[in-house]
Amino acid sequence: MTPEGEHLALRQEEAIKDSFARQAFMNHLGARLMTVRRGWCEVIVDYRPELTQQHGYFHGAVIGAIADNASGYAAFTTKSSEASDTALITVEYKINFIAPARGDALVAQGQIVHPGKTLTVCRANVLCLENGKEKLCATSLSTFISIKKE
Amino acid sequence: MTPEGEHLALRQEEAIKDSFARQAFMNHLGARLMTVRRGWCEVIVDYRPELTQQHGYFHGAVIGAIADNASGYAAFTTKSSEASDTALITVEYKINFIAPARGDALVAQGQIVHPGKTLTVCRANVLCLENGKEKLCATSLSTFISIKKE
Amino acid sequence: MTPEGEHLALRQEEAIKDSFARQAFMNHLGARLMTVRRGWCEVIVDYRPELTQQHGYFHGAVIGAIADNASGYAAFTTKSSEASDTALITVEYKINFIAPARGDALVAQGQIVHPGKTLTVCRANVLCLENGKEKLCATSLSTFISIKKE
Amino acid sequence: MTPEGEHLALRQEEAIKDSFARQAFMNHLGARLMTVRRGWCEVIVDYRPELTQQHGYFHGAVIGAIADNASGYAAFTTKSSEASDTALITVEYKINFIAPARGDALVAQGQIVHPGKTLTVCRANVLCLENGKEKLCATSLSTFISIKKE
Repeated sequence: MTPEGEHLALRQEEAIKDSFARQAFMNHLGARLMTVRRGWCEVIVDYRPELTQQHGYFHGAVIGAIADNASGYAAFTTKSSEASDTALITVEYKINFIAPARGDALVAQGQIVHPGKTLTVCRANVLCLENGKEKLCATSLSTFISIKKE
Repeated sequence: MTPEGEHLALRQEEAIKDSFARQAFMNHLGARLMTVRRGWCEVIVDYRPELTQQHGYFHGAVIGAIADNASGYAAFTTKSSEASDTALITVEYKINFIAPARGDALVAQGQIVHPGKTLTVCRANVLCLENGKEKLCATSLSTFISIKKE
Repeated sequence: MTPEGEHLALRQEEAIKDSFARQAFMNHLGARLMTVRRGWCEVIVDYRPELTQQHGYFHGAVIGAIADNASGYAAFTTKSSEASDTALITVEYKINFIAPARGDALVAQGQIVHPGKTLTVCRANVLCLENGKEKLCATSLSTFISIKKE
Repeated sequence: MTPEGEHLALRQEEAIKDSFARQAFMNHLGARLMTVRRGWCEVIVDYRPELTQQHGYFHGAVIGAIADNASGYAAFTTKSSEASDTALITVEYKINFIAPARGDALVAQGQIVHPGKTLTVCRANVLCLENGKEKLCATSLSTFISIKKE
């Protein structure tokens, strides 16, 4: 999947980068926000031994973390005009684990399925990169709600 | 929710503790395996700044991590006789985030809904503990599959 | 599971019965609303050959239908004071099919996990009744949203 | 979405049509199996008053029924060589309802996300057709398991 969607206004791209940087946990994972377009977002995390499960593969919770983030920021890109006083919260998600997440890096690609006024539905694919090859290792379907910031 | 279910045989309890300890990522979170009973498992994680999202609450991915672990080990407790050559893998889960996960610690309580020969269905509640009070902050429904270890 | 929760005010119980009766599709299934309590609701459907899948068991979509209805009306019971101008809509649900739904009748028991102001989370168990015995055949986890009626 | 994937062998297409026809409940809905390709399946149901909810739109359970069927037969198309002794069962699905399902007909388009040996993951979009226009009204993510027929 190559990046899709229009580029964002600089101001909005910076708001998203700021938001991502304020998640201490994403920093604890070493996750990085990559391409963000209108309705589309990519988050990557490099292999580190502390991110693994019993067999040395990426842990499912790391996969869930980047799938949720890529989906949430994809959803957020359609809230641009109201960005300063609107927050998006994950209502729920479902994730299917498809193959062992083995490799040098993990990439989550989130995209909007339906941008609603109150609720936005997204899906994400998580790919593992090994020796230059991409392999689908998980897929998710998520619901986000827009709320006014307090 | 107080612990439910029969106590496990010592050998099985140790197999579960060993398995938990071999998850580097759970150690990276500082998560600890607490009570394990037949069909029931509790995992706890204490507050640390690096586990938070933008508002200083526990990150959703930490909630997902311990919900999945508590469910998975609850499921595993019914696989005792075959424990040495059977592995349980998360097929998929769905999680609803119910309230901000604010507090000193987070506890996931997983229990079996249906223990199948191939597929086991579990649910988990995740509670945040703040000033000695428990509050439900998430709930999940998960599917696990038993496979022969290679 | 025996019925749980307080009895409803007569006015509210009638509002729920009216709403159920206005679902033409539930009538097409022959589904009936049974016990309704605060945060709890039971819907039953008797065996009829037209409700089956290839093997003569209840079709999964019938199971999904009554799980969703039992959950939705369980959620609705907490919206009593505003009942006249509030509607509850299913945002999404996830359902696990656990055993073949064989028998004389199918009963869905829905209950609230968390009653929120905007979003309510419910779960339901669906039991099949065969020769006087109950067997769990499915379990669901659902999200509902309150909206102002137009 | 236009049909995707290779055409099936005649023998397999007929096996799928036979299986669909043996679901009494799909007949009770008036649902029809449309295009089937390798990894892709379309199921349609025309508007009838008995398929509606309180507001005269298609009932969510009808949406769930055709999403599940379109996904299941999409999954089944990859099991061709073993078709005679393999059955596919829905393990679970999650469905998001996106817009009121108003219109003359409802079309579910299911496709494979990952065809596994034991577990197959599919997603489906459900569109409502009104005055010649298609509108997305629901989306699902499902898991199926292959079992040996008894």
